[in-house]
Amino acid sequence: MACDIVVLGGTGDLALRKLLPALYYLHRDGYLHAGTRILAAARAKHAAESYRRLVQRHVSQHVALGDFDSGTWDAFAERIDYLSLDVSQRVEFPRLAQALGKVRGRVRVFYLATFPNLFAATAKHLASVGLVDEQARIVLEKPLGESLKTATQINDQIGAVFDESRVFRIDHYLGKEAVQNLLALRFGNALLEPLWRNAHIDHVQISVLETVGVENRGGYYDQAGAMRDMVQNHLLQLLCLVAMEAPVHFEPEAVRNEKLKILEALRPITGMDVQDRTVRGQYAAGERAGEQLPAYYFEKSVDHDSNTETFVALKAEIDNWRWAGVPFYLRTGKCLAQRKSEIVIQFKAVPHRLFSQNGGDPARNRLVIRLQPDESISLALMAKSPGRGMALQEVELDLNFAKAFKRRRWDAYERLLLDVIEGDATLFMRRDEIEAAWRWVDPIIQGWQDCYRSPKRYAAGSWGPDAADSLLERQGHCWFDEN
Amino acid sequence: MACDIVVLGGTGDLALRKLLPALYYLHRDGYLHAGTRILAAARAKHAAESYRRLVQRHVSQHVALGDFDSGTWDAFAERIDYLSLDVSQRVEFPRLAQALGKVRGRVRVFYLATFPNLFAATAKHLASVGLVDEQARIVLEKPLGESLKTATQINDQIGAVFDESRVFRIDHYLGKEAVQNLLALRFGNALLEPLWRNAHIDHVQISVLETVGVENRGGYYDQAGAMRDMVQNHLLQLLCLVAMEAPVHFEPEAVRNEKLKILEALRPITGMDVQDRTVRGQYAAGERAGEQLPAYYFEKSVDHDSNTETFVALKAEIDNWRWAGVPFYLRTGKCLAQRKSEIVIQFKAVPHRLFSQNGGDPARNRLVIRLQPDESISLALMAKSPGRGMALQEVELDLNFAKAFKRRRWDAYERLLLDVIEGDATLFMRRDEIEAAWRWVDPIIQGWQDCYRSPKRYAAGSWGPDAADSLLERQGHCWFDEN
Repeated sequence: MACDIVVLGGTGDLALRKLLPALYYLHRDGYLHAGTRILAAARAKHAAESYRRLVQRHVSQHVALGDFDSGTWDAFAERIDYLSLDVSQRVEFPRLAQALGKVRGRVRVFYLATFPNLFAATAKHLASVGLVDEQARIVLEKPLGESLKTATQINDQIGAVFDESRVFRIDHYLGKEAVQNLLALRFGNALLEPLWRNAHIDHVQISVLETVGVENRGGYYDQAGAMRDMVQNHLLQLLCLVAMEAPVHFEPEAVRNEKLKILEALRPITGMDVQDRTVRGQYAAGERAGEQLPAYYFEKSVDHDSNTETFVALKAEIDNWRWAGVPFYLRTGKCLAQRKSEIVIQFKAVPHRLFSQNGGDPARNRLVIRLQPDESISLALMAKSPGRGMALQEVELDLNFAKAFKRRRWDAYERLLLDVIEGDATLFMRRDEIEAAWRWVDPIIQGWQDCYRSPKRYAAGSWGPDAADSLLERQGHCWFDEN
Repeated sequence: MACDIVVLGGTGDLALRKLLPALYYLHRDGYLHAGTRILAAARAKHAAESYRRLVQRHVSQHVALGDFDSGTWDAFAERIDYLSLDVSQRVEFPRLAQALGKVRGRVRVFYLATFPNLFAATAKHLASVGLVDEQARIVLEKPLGESLKTATQINDQIGAVFDESRVFRIDHYLGKEAVQNLLALRFGNALLEPLWRNAHIDHVQISVLETVGVENRGGYYDQAGAMRDMVQNHLLQLLCLVAMEAPVHFEPEAVRNEKLKILEALRPITGMDVQDRTVRGQYAAGERAGEQLPAYYFEKSVDHDSNTETFVALKAEIDNWRWAGVPFYLRTGKCLAQRKSEIVIQFKAVPHRLFSQNGGDPARNRLVIRLQPDESISLALMAKSPGRGMALQEVELDLNFAKAFKRRRWDAYERLLLDVIEGDATLFMRRDEIEAAWRWVDPIIQGWQDCYRSPKRYAAGSWGPDAADSLLERQGHCWFDEN
């Protein structure tokens, strides 16, 4: 179906590095209707031609080598228009309405690639000029609010204009192949589901580790911190996908109902538990491969006395039949030793050891779903060490997506933008999910504020504060990091 | 411990192509005591030197490229002596005793690489000259007998001379890494055991397919047939390892007790069931890759009217709690399209389909343990097909032993010879196992004889008679053959 894709914040990083390259691919691969138009809007002054050149420069850099060709580009560029617009100004919106024309019944996607504090006003302004009809969809980027209270306010304000079924709260982690594969693995294979419970799983680790610091986002980040920036959304969403029951069918409401049940079953971490079950850290100066890395509080736009956490590790527990007694360890941080996002399912040890073992401790079966830097799935099994005797040795059965599927891998935004165009909200967060996540996160942040302790320092380029290791060691566990 | 390894039938194929290359490797890798000697005996006249040259020629051909070097060979050759001996003649044994000397307490391994009809007499003769003491071990190659009756006779006769604990009935399939890995996988991983039962496994296939015909073994083979030559030993042993309960410990009696329980739980196939649940075939003329292949009854030393089967397929069932209702399909044959030995564990389909599926039928999880031509383990899982939507696609997680373990892989005979030298009978068949296997096999052979039907013809180079496919199709199954 022909639609208008309106990218508000069209000159920002997200638009230029992610959204427009994704749209280019969708165009090239025939997923965009011939009548579909792209209208970018931002405060900067651009003629359509100069904006297209800007986009061309970014798209040609961000698509894979050989995927950019001028014929395809020319056809794609014809879809693009640009409007100079300050979304905070109500008076500018009639021009937007005019640019889009008065075609009723045409699908309109408003992608708010802007600051979150503009979401509510933008929605209101869109409605005020008649752009919000039953075919209009709005796409919101995280973070949605900074607490349950503010998130509820934003949701209320958006909800006053857009029906919940037309609000697409994007979490690009859910667009990753490896994340969707987690669902395919769990519910498309008879093999895993019987094992996927506390009887067989010892614990789960979800790590989203970054090597970069706050880069140019110091102003925003220093207000938010890792808990709001990463845990409340990406990490809890991954936790939901690991832990949820099989949905009735693979449709938006069914899937989101199951995720919500997990968020509601998370045991609250409050009061003294905050110190026991969470660790927050902040990077100090350090180095990686000879390069000196500055401390967080020397980063641009960061308060020199900042107590904002750039690292969080915590032990979550899910109070339901399936997961009682299984710790879910979450960990995320900036300026760490390695960039990786992965989910580790650590199975229990064999109940009885029949064979001797090379290398001490009994290795346990482990399923690792890696999202970054590459997407892969690997299953660690014990096999016989070759030769005499019957000693065991760990081996890995691997599935690398890039190798297994010769086809080009879709970027998360491609997948998710197409879902928005087609109106499929399965991989987007529903209002009640967001709010349930905040309901669980708020008391932890509160606990940190109440205790007056500073975040633990860790050297930039390290694996984070030692306390993150102690958190697991107390349970006889350790982070699965291959040096 | 220093020992004497006496290879009776020392000029035969088995000795020259398998046993002596295996001993060469054991010597090279330091597993043979400095005082260990190898005495080969056979009817042919050889001086020790000329026999060593014969061995050298074979060893240098049969070990891997680069593993043969003259320094190692010279030291190995010093261990080897040769005695011209007709094992059927009692009067020749004093010379054997003399050659071995009167050292009591020294481990003596008598490897009978001779015709099975000589086993009993050889054992008796060895005893008559005082060579069988409590340190003497005897190694017997299959086939042991041709029915329960004859096997019992041989076992009685051997047993009159050698205590059961010193009888090593070899099945070289059990020496293969991939077969032992089946045990490692099952009992060294917490992951598989909960799934390893009728609730989760749909059926099991065990195939040992050969491309060769009877070669020079027509005389023996025409008397035996595929049932006695392969099913009674190799295939039933593999079935036992797949199906057995966890043994109390990984010791000979514990492991063999569990295997015996499986053989005893095999549902008898008798009377009319023989026609319904078994297929026997014999190869007719055919071709493979342009090469004309002769019919079985034109092979050397085969009766022109032979009704001997060169192919067997059957449906076995195990009447116990774990396996009730799970068919074990066994299949073996000569002159087939492909050489492969493999065990396929076919898991049940997902109870509820959440996702659509590329390519029709729901693929099911499948664990394939391949023994030949290469040793590997692969697990077929459903993963998400890349791109839009949520369609599933089968992917394989692979473990190729040669790649996974950089070390040279041991040949089955190396492993098993070292076990004999060390007195570990875990991977050898106990008397009661052999007899239980015959007890199950005899009525099938009897059923074939009673019905007066000829074996089904199949073209040499094909996948066997169509009836072998129908056998599975009736249950909604099919052989897992990739063209």
